[in-house]
Amino acid sequence: MRTDPTSGWMENGAHVFPLRVYYEDTDFSGLVYHAAYLKFMERGRSEFLRAAGVLHQELAAGHEPVMWAVRRIAVEYLKPAHLEDSLTVRTRTVDLSGARIRLRQEIHRGAETLVTADVEVCLVGKGRARRIPETIRERLEKLGA
Amino acid sequence: MRTDPTSGWMENGAHVFPLRVYYEDTDFSGLVYHAAYLKFMERGRSEFLRAAGVLHQELAAGHEPVMWAVRRIAVEYLKPAHLEDSLTVRTRTVDLSGARIRLRQEIHRGAETLVTADVEVCLVGKGRARRIPETIRERLEKLGA
Amino acid sequence: MRTDPTSGWMENGAHVFPLRVYYEDTDFSGLVYHAAYLKFMERGRSEFLRAAGVLHQELAAGHEPVMWAVRRIAVEYLKPAHLEDSLTVRTRTVDLSGARIRLRQEIHRGAETLVTADVEVCLVGKGRARRIPETIRERLEKLGA
Amino acid sequence: MRTDPTSGWMENGAHVFPLRVYYEDTDFSGLVYHAAYLKFMERGRSEFLRAAGVLHQELAAGHEPVMWAVRRIAVEYLKPAHLEDSLTVRTRTVDLSGARIRLRQEIHRGAETLVTADVEVCLVGKGRARRIPETIRERLEKLGA
Repeated sequence: MRTDPTSGWMENGAHVFPLRVYYEDTDFSGLVYHAAYLKFMERGRSEFLRAAGVLHQELAAGHEPVMWAVRRIAVEYLKPAHLEDSLTVRTRTVDLSGARIRLRQEIHRGAETLVTADVEVCLVGKGRARRIPETIRERLEKLGA
Repeated sequence: MRTDPTSGWMENGAHVFPLRVYYEDTDFSGLVYHAAYLKFMERGRSEFLRAAGVLHQELAAGHEPVMWAVRRIAVEYLKPAHLEDSLTVRTRTVDLSGARIRLRQEIHRGAETLVTADVEVCLVGKGRARRIPETIRERLEKLGA
Repeated sequence: MRTDPTSGWMENGAHVFPLRVYYEDTDFSGLVYHAAYLKFMERGRSEFLRAAGVLHQELAAGHEPVMWAVRRIAVEYLKPAHLEDSLTVRTRTVDLSGARIRLRQEIHRGAETLVTADVEVCLVGKGRARRIPETIRERLEKLGA
Repeated sequence: MRTDPTSGWMENGAHVFPLRVYYEDTDFSGLVYHAAYLKFMERGRSEFLRAAGVLHQELAAGHEPVMWAVRRIAVEYLKPAHLEDSLTVRTRTVDLSGARIRLRQEIHRGAETLVTADVEVCLVGKGRARRIPETIRERLEKLGA
C-alpha cells in the first residue's frame, strides 16, 4: 500500500510536481485565486529541493540555521485553472550564483501553460543572505543536469 | 510516466489521502497552523467524493446546481504536525441521513493520530439545503461499505 | 491621519473586532470558505489579547518562551458571508482554568449571527501545556469583567 | 460606536490601507509567508476600488457580469514583516489603458518599504478581457488625481 505523498519526478531537466485544485484554492470568480499559484510553485520548489536531498528542517536545525527566502517573483497569468483540475508545476534552475538561485517555474494543465514565473530565492541566516554551500549547489546542479 | 495527483485509496472502510506539509501550512509557532488542518480535511473529503464518482463541477453544472457546505465541525488537536511531515487524512461516513452526511475524519502521521474531527456537510442549492440524491447516497454507501 | 489598523473594542463584556471579506476569503461557491472563519476568529482572539495587553511576540521572547495553541474548536455555520461583507468577530471568555481558556466566539453581520464557535486554547512552551501566568489571567479577567 | 472596518484613505495621490499581521500570515520562518503579501495587496486594491465607488458584487451582478483578474504581478521582497506588525498597503494607478490597469503597490511598516509590486489587472467577462467602462475609468482617475 502506497503511503507517501508524491515528490514528483524529473523530465527533460525540469522537476515536475502534480497537484489537484481544491476548494481552498478557488475564489469568488469560481476559478483559482491568483495567490494560490504561488503556493503551488512553493510546493514545487520544496519537492524539487527534496528530490535533490535538500530539506528545510535540516537547514533550520544545522549549526548555522538557514532558511530559503523569496527575493523576487514575476508571475504571468495566461489561463485560469478550475476546481478539480489536475495540474503540474514545472521547476527548472536558470542560474545558481553565489548567494541566489534563479528558477523558472510553469504551471501546466496537460499541454496548456496556465501560469509562468521567474523566481529568485536565497538562503537567509540570522536575517542576512548567506552564500549557498557547495554541497547544496552540487546537489541542485546534479539534479538539473 | 505518472502524471496525475493521487486520489488516495480505501483501507478498512475508510478513505485514506496522503499529503505533505509545506511552508504555506505552517505559522509563527514553526508548526502547522490550526486552520490548515481543515484544508487538509476538505482535500480528504473531496478525494473521498471523487473516489465515489461524485464531482464538485458536475454538481455545480447540473440542471439544479448544488454544492457541498459544511454545517458544523468539531476539531480536536492532539499533537502538532511539522513542516515536511508526510500525513494521511482518513475519512469515514458515520451517518447518511436525508439531507446531511456526518463524517469522522482523522489526520495521522504514521501510527500517530494528530487531529480528529466530526464533520457535518449538506448539499445546498439556491441557498437552501437539498435532499441528497439517491444516486449519490448509493455511491457513498457502496464505497464506505 | 489615522495610521493603525483597528484593534476592536469592548461591548457588553465581549471584545468586538470588525473586518471586511476579501477575495482571498471566498471560494468556488461564491461565498466565504469554511476555514476562513477560523482565521477571522483567530484575528479576533489576537486583538482581544492585544486589548488586554498580552502580545504574541512578548510571550515568544520571554525567559520561558510560550505560544497559544488551539486545543479544540467546535464551529457551527448558520448563514454564509459574502464578498465585501462587513463582519464583526465577538469574543468572550467563558472559563479561565489553570492551563486552558475557553472562549465563545461569534461572527455577526449586523444583527445576524453567521457562525458560532466554542474554542479552547492553552499556552504551550517546549512542546508542553503551561499554567497560564497570574499576570495574564488578571489582565484577561479585568478586560472581560 | 464604530462598527465598520476601515477602507483606508488617500495620501499624496495614493490609496493607503492599514492592516495587522496575524498568525495566519506567518510561516515556519517566524516571518510573513511570501504569498501573504499578495493577499495584503489584493485587500489594498479592493479598498482602493471601494474608495472609488467600484464594488466587486455590483460588477458581478451587472447586465454583463465582469470581474477583476490579475494578468501579471512582479514582486520584490526587501525586508520581512513580523507577527503583530502594523503595515500599510499603498496603491497608485500607473496607467489606465483601454482594457488594463497598471498599479504600483508598496507595503510599508512606518517609514520602511518592505515589499514593492507592479501589478496589471483587467476586467474579465465570460472568459474574455473586457474594455474598462468609462464610468469606472473616470472614478479611478478622479480618485488618483
